[in-house]
Amino acid sequence: MKPTPDTPTRPLPGALRELVGRPVDAIDTPALVVDLDAMQRNLGRMAEFAQKHDIRWRPHAKMHKSSALAKLQMQAGAVGVCVQKTAEAEAMVAGGVHNVYISNEVIAPHKLARVAALAQKLAAQHGQLAMAVDSPEGVSRLAQAMNEARVASGKSAVIDVFVEVDVGQRRCGVAPGSTALALALEIRRHPALRFAGLQAYHGKAQHLRSAQERREAIAVAVEDVLYTRRLIEAKGVPVDLVTGAGTGSLVLEAASGVYGELQAGSFLFMDADYARNERDPAQPQFEHALFIKTQVISSCATHSVCDAGHKSHAIDSGLPTVHALDAGNELEYANGGDEHGILRTTGVGTRLPDLGRFLWLIPGHCDPTVNLHDFMIGVTGGLRAGKVERIIRVDARGALT
Amino acid sequence: MKPTPDTPTRPLPGALRELVGRPVDAIDTPALVVDLDAMQRNLGRMAEFAQKHDIRWRPHAKMHKSSALAKLQMQAGAVGVCVQKTAEAEAMVAGGVHNVYISNEVIAPHKLARVAALAQKLAAQHGQLAMAVDSPEGVSRLAQAMNEARVASGKSAVIDVFVEVDVGQRRCGVAPGSTALALALEIRRHPALRFAGLQAYHGKAQHLRSAQERREAIAVAVEDVLYTRRLIEAKGVPVDLVTGAGTGSLVLEAASGVYGELQAGSFLFMDADYARNERDPAQPQFEHALFIKTQVISSCATHSVCDAGHKSHAIDSGLPTVHALDAGNELEYANGGDEHGILRTTGVGTRLPDLGRFLWLIPGHCDPTVNLHDFMIGVTGGLRAGKVERIIRVDARGALT
Repeated sequence: MKPTPDTPTRPLPGALRELVGRPVDAIDTPALVVDLDAMQRNLGRMAEFAQKHDIRWRPHAKMHKSSALAKLQMQAGAVGVCVQKTAEAEAMVAGGVHNVYISNEVIAPHKLARVAALAQKLAAQHGQLAMAVDSPEGVSRLAQAMNEARVASGKSAVIDVFVEVDVGQRRCGVAPGSTALALALEIRRHPALRFAGLQAYHGKAQHLRSAQERREAIAVAVEDVLYTRRLIEAKGVPVDLVTGAGTGSLVLEAASGVYGELQAGSFLFMDADYARNERDPAQPQFEHALFIKTQVISSCATHSVCDAGHKSHAIDSGLPTVHALDAGNELEYANGGDEHGILRTTGVGTRLPDLGRFLWLIPGHCDPTVNLHDFMIGVTGGLRAGKVERIIRVDARGALT
Repeated sequence: MKPTPDTPTRPLPGALRELVGRPVDAIDTPALVVDLDAMQRNLGRMAEFAQKHDIRWRPHAKMHKSSALAKLQMQAGAVGVCVQKTAEAEAMVAGGVHNVYISNEVIAPHKLARVAALAQKLAAQHGQLAMAVDSPEGVSRLAQAMNEARVASGKSAVIDVFVEVDVGQRRCGVAPGSTALALALEIRRHPALRFAGLQAYHGKAQHLRSAQERREAIAVAVEDVLYTRRLIEAKGVPVDLVTGAGTGSLVLEAASGVYGELQAGSFLFMDADYARNERDPAQPQFEHALFIKTQVISSCATHSVCDAGHKSHAIDSGLPTVHALDAGNELEYANGGDEHGILRTTGVGTRLPDLGRFLWLIPGHCDPTVNLHDFMIGVTGGLRAGKVERIIRVDARGALT
């Protein structure tokens, strides 16, 4: 991948630079490691799936927080990326990503000034910025920020604005129907805002374990979207795009005939929690591609202790599982606090791992796990005998505002 | 605080530099904010407590991960700091902290080479490095690394080594008694290692809710330590120091007559989880000093949504609570995922906070919360009308190896 001119060129720390080309065994622990072969296969499966269903995909960069991976996804066919935060959008644009959608509400005037500046910057690069809204105040504040940026710079830009509809997540978004219509009409009153369609992500549906439950939840979401879209179109306003979906439900939105864009992000790495879902037969078989390499630093008769705790991986969606690289070696990871993990045997005849032994953990939830690390170590040739191919900077790590 | 010559001098990001002197309202959200007045009071209470009990204190820097705060603690009387990781020790030393104890096991030879280099560096500065061990292999590998560093540099240094005893935590550490004795004797065989005493931290006791349960747990720990110490001393080997204790139990270790050093770290900031403990009457009344400033970005009839989720604060010890800055405004924070929090009313007559409203969250657990942020924003004059006094760099953030 050729870096674009505005890719950050800060040098990597020396120890990481020297790691490239070396065997997997040389990776210090704990470390966030990407199996690049598995990642590429996941990427290919997603591209193929989207092409087959003739649907756009705009993966969520809140997951990998890396402009390098965002560009890799766009080279594979993604139209751009989603982010949740203004600072994430800034990091993506600084890293050379020219099509960014903030699929979330922004309310603070000084943040909206940054959004407007970003819209202008991307317009000058023939790129595009988009944002979601769920209140009249959100619309008028955004319009004011866009106007102020135009007056200050003498240049005009247009931002795509999606109305967020709550289709079952019960978090942000307006109720389906007339409130959404009113917002769409409000957006169209402002020349710097283009009503681009509906944001309709059902986050809660992603982790419903049975495929049937997910089908039922997304069926309701689709009805909500259809109802809202008809109401808006009845006023002569086109609804160009409905965007949403996650890795747990994407087959359903893709088959709905209503959604035009998939936002799934986790498919690239697959975490332990998504793997616990009953797979819909139509869903591509995504593989685990993100791991924590860890080492046993203490061992006794009842358990071993490794050097990865919840400062190395997020535990909001459950503890990590231990990768069964060795056949018959069944180990359970238990909470050992911020810096430690407790390992116990579960399989008959399984030995506790010895002092110094390396193990690979599959994180419960990839998004907040990646956010704990400044770098991901990309490996090819497998976790056992492979080598370090590249270091991936998590350039939107900690981009919270 | 005057920066020492080896304090990192990398400039702060401009937006943060410009924040100093401005009112609290100007802090962008979400942000990690320290009430410096409350923090200083906590520091004074701890110093007074330690003086009264004639006990050393060596606060755990894994909590704040800041060399600036470590030096502030040493100015207030702390003998040095603890850390859990070699990379944390390196960050502390780079920031001008000259007395560091890695209260954890280190096994990887290349990490032990870094430990040995650090021991040499600190010896040249009349500082001191210490480390814990719980296996003969840990001792021999450390001795080998110290020896290799001596041969390579032509300079010798001595590292303090503590034998970690498992006094109830069931994580690292050897059983009390003869195994600990054997390790102590093994340490004394190596001229570059000094047997410095026993590491005896009972992590599980910290969050036992009733003061009585904590008393019972620490009473057992004290017996374990006494038994082990007697066994070692019977061989003519002095046990200079027993070190341990956390914010939940420190009054007990201080009163034990056995522990000579307190490692408590959280007292400086106090989190929601420690506040749930029944306070021992003898314990200083530590105040909350660490907050997440957040803003309402969406609001509907049933709930409001703020811009802080578990990428802003750790949830391993429970969700954050909402600071009751406004009398009668009782709000509950519910999980809204990585980037959002759901706010609902609990008190009768309490209104949901409006769009744009700022709120302050008290994190469930301060250590992994601080580790999510590159900077802490230090405020004086209170959260309502105060101003930004200083920016504190979390210079050991993400220091995992």
